[in-house]
Amino acid sequence: MSFKRIGIIGGGQLGKMMVSEGKKLGLFFAILDPLHDCPASSMVDKHIVADFYNKEEIRRLAEITDVITYEFEHIDADILMELEEEGYKIFPSPATLKIIQNKLHQKVFLRQQGIPVPDFQKIETLEELQDAVKSNGLPLLLKSCRGGYDGKGNFLIKTSEDISGAFEALGGKGSELMMEAYVPFVKEVSVIVARGANGEIKTYPLGENIHENNILKTTIVPARVTKEIKEKAKALAFKTMEVLKGIGIFCIEMFVDEDNNLLVNEIAPRTHNSGHYTIEACSTSQFSQHLRAIMELPLGSTSLVSPAVMINLLGEGGYEGKSKLIGLEKALELPEVYVHFYGKTDTKPERKMGHVTILGDSLQLALDKANKLTDMIKVVVEE
Amino acid sequence: MSFKRIGIIGGGQLGKMMVSEGKKLGLFFAILDPLHDCPASSMVDKHIVADFYNKEEIRRLAEITDVITYEFEHIDADILMELEEEGYKIFPSPATLKIIQNKLHQKVFLRQQGIPVPDFQKIETLEELQDAVKSNGLPLLLKSCRGGYDGKGNFLIKTSEDISGAFEALGGKGSELMMEAYVPFVKEVSVIVARGANGEIKTYPLGENIHENNILKTTIVPARVTKEIKEKAKALAFKTMEVLKGIGIFCIEMFVDEDNNLLVNEIAPRTHNSGHYTIEACSTSQFSQHLRAIMELPLGSTSLVSPAVMINLLGEGGYEGKSKLIGLEKALELPEVYVHFYGKTDTKPERKMGHVTILGDSLQLALDKANKLTDMIKVVVEE
Repeated sequence: MSFKRIGIIGGGQLGKMMVSEGKKLGLFFAILDPLHDCPASSMVDKHIVADFYNKEEIRRLAEITDVITYEFEHIDADILMELEEEGYKIFPSPATLKIIQNKLHQKVFLRQQGIPVPDFQKIETLEELQDAVKSNGLPLLLKSCRGGYDGKGNFLIKTSEDISGAFEALGGKGSELMMEAYVPFVKEVSVIVARGANGEIKTYPLGENIHENNILKTTIVPARVTKEIKEKAKALAFKTMEVLKGIGIFCIEMFVDEDNNLLVNEIAPRTHNSGHYTIEACSTSQFSQHLRAIMELPLGSTSLVSPAVMINLLGEGGYEGKSKLIGLEKALELPEVYVHFYGKTDTKPERKMGHVTILGDSLQLALDKANKLTDMIKVVVEE
Repeated sequence: MSFKRIGIIGGGQLGKMMVSEGKKLGLFFAILDPLHDCPASSMVDKHIVADFYNKEEIRRLAEITDVITYEFEHIDADILMELEEEGYKIFPSPATLKIIQNKLHQKVFLRQQGIPVPDFQKIETLEELQDAVKSNGLPLLLKSCRGGYDGKGNFLIKTSEDISGAFEALGGKGSELMMEAYVPFVKEVSVIVARGANGEIKTYPLGENIHENNILKTTIVPARVTKEIKEKAKALAFKTMEVLKGIGIFCIEMFVDEDNNLLVNEIAPRTHNSGHYTIEACSTSQFSQHLRAIMELPLGSTSLVSPAVMINLLGEGGYEGKSKLIGLEKALELPEVYVHFYGKTDTKPERKMGHVTILGDSLQLALDKANKLTDMIKVVVEE
């Protein structure tokens, strides 16, 4: 092993699960996260408590580790670029990160490379947005080009009365905004894909995603689509990784439209919620694979050992405060049910508090178990 | 979840792997271990640096956790008994631990319960040992009743010239010693078995163990024995757990003799090296299962997902000092190879530094891969 010390920007659940896999190899982990009690904090060797844009502390993270990666893309890419020029290893590369961080740049880049994406255009003024509505019709998406996750920073304009409110809600004039055509999709799918330091690419089986209120609720693997769509999605993920030259795990979210066309929706240059099923259902988890890639080790097998359903444990509506998991005992009576509880101190409605992966001899059996679990296991507050 | 804070006496690799599983559930872990850089130390919430016989600190561990368990049986059972009487939860119970800690008491108990064990007798003087040799013949085992692991505390007397040397080597007169008949076994096997708080018992598939210099080198699952032996071993493990009333994971090591009889060799009241394969090869790992048992949760499925071979990574002969793993890159080129490196700072010959679990579509494929790996991956010292 040439790389033994891993630095992660971000110490949320994605960081925690990466640490969990890396500790099996006896690796040293340092994280940078502003929250002293973030999920990864109690499992790491070093926690630098600092903001994601703190250049000095990001530099310190680089100095005490052999390679830097991140579990969150809204971080300071400029300092990473500077550090890379000085010879520090950063994967995925800051150049790739820069393309992805800005949703407009991301889409421009993908379109230039011949990768199908929904129609989009830059929006600088309310007039431009009004014109866009005229020429594209409604519904239509207005998006902030930077930041945002779980639907935050996105506004779905349904009627012409929404237009000016949407524009103001996302910051108005002077903000970096873009409009995107609304795709009347029949399925949302995602490919978890890894690219190694030597350019080798491996995709995981296609996952089918179900969102509620813009937050991922369920991932079903394998996706219930035709073989042809699976192959198209795989080819699209390969091409995307080739042009992005990303090293590590990426998630390529796609829409399947009514004509079975695939359009790339968004790309995450990191492990992804829709890949959590890989921990129990695949030969190599996305977290272990990411470490292999950034440590310049050979990629592992991505084969699916069992059909799987992943359900997110979101903070229950109406509960805000010290978190408490209920129903674990009942849930664990079912076979092949794997509960992950991230250890976040406080819950609030729709906060990602944990997830459950359910395996089954058939996808239908896993789905049936998942249905039972949905009402069984919940995150509420301590009394 | 009623129990959220787990105290572990011992912070070696077994403790580390337990913490790794428990962190998935967001549990709090405190360990007690004299080594400040023991394998589990960097992954836990609290590390009490103290000796395994430090009554005060063991009490402190109980005070800051909801349940105490251990990854090592040579600890102070009296203080645990005292704490249990005061109402603290300790699993497996100190009463069970006391029976097992003393190898003579263990064998007496098992024989009383009708569980087949090799012939044995207490040895107090050299004369008693000489008489035992006369009546039992050679070879014959002399064992310390307390302490000892990986063959330490055992002396195989091969010729009559060894007798007095063996007696002195294990402490001579005044030491608690026993002799045990040497079983000319054809296989050594072990059953990893769990008993829940409600008395439910589940066994894992039988493992076949290969020792070198008294240290476990390889575990092969499923064991290459007849179905009849597998069933007998399972029944014996069930019976042993019923009489011991142990809560948690236990390992029951057995000999298979030339007539296909099974004799219980030793019992460990804890997770065991020969159960490491369960991490990748079974629906529920032994560590996860142990936590379920001591948290009074339902036991998980013990079914084997794939045939498996586990090989220990022992410190290479001739190397002593700061440890270094070599050959990882080549090893990871093979599919379904899972490397665990415990993160012990120093290596020395035959020290348990890590292990590798190898899965395969057939046991033969896994064995072939394991053979290749044996020369590929090694623990040496940093230059």
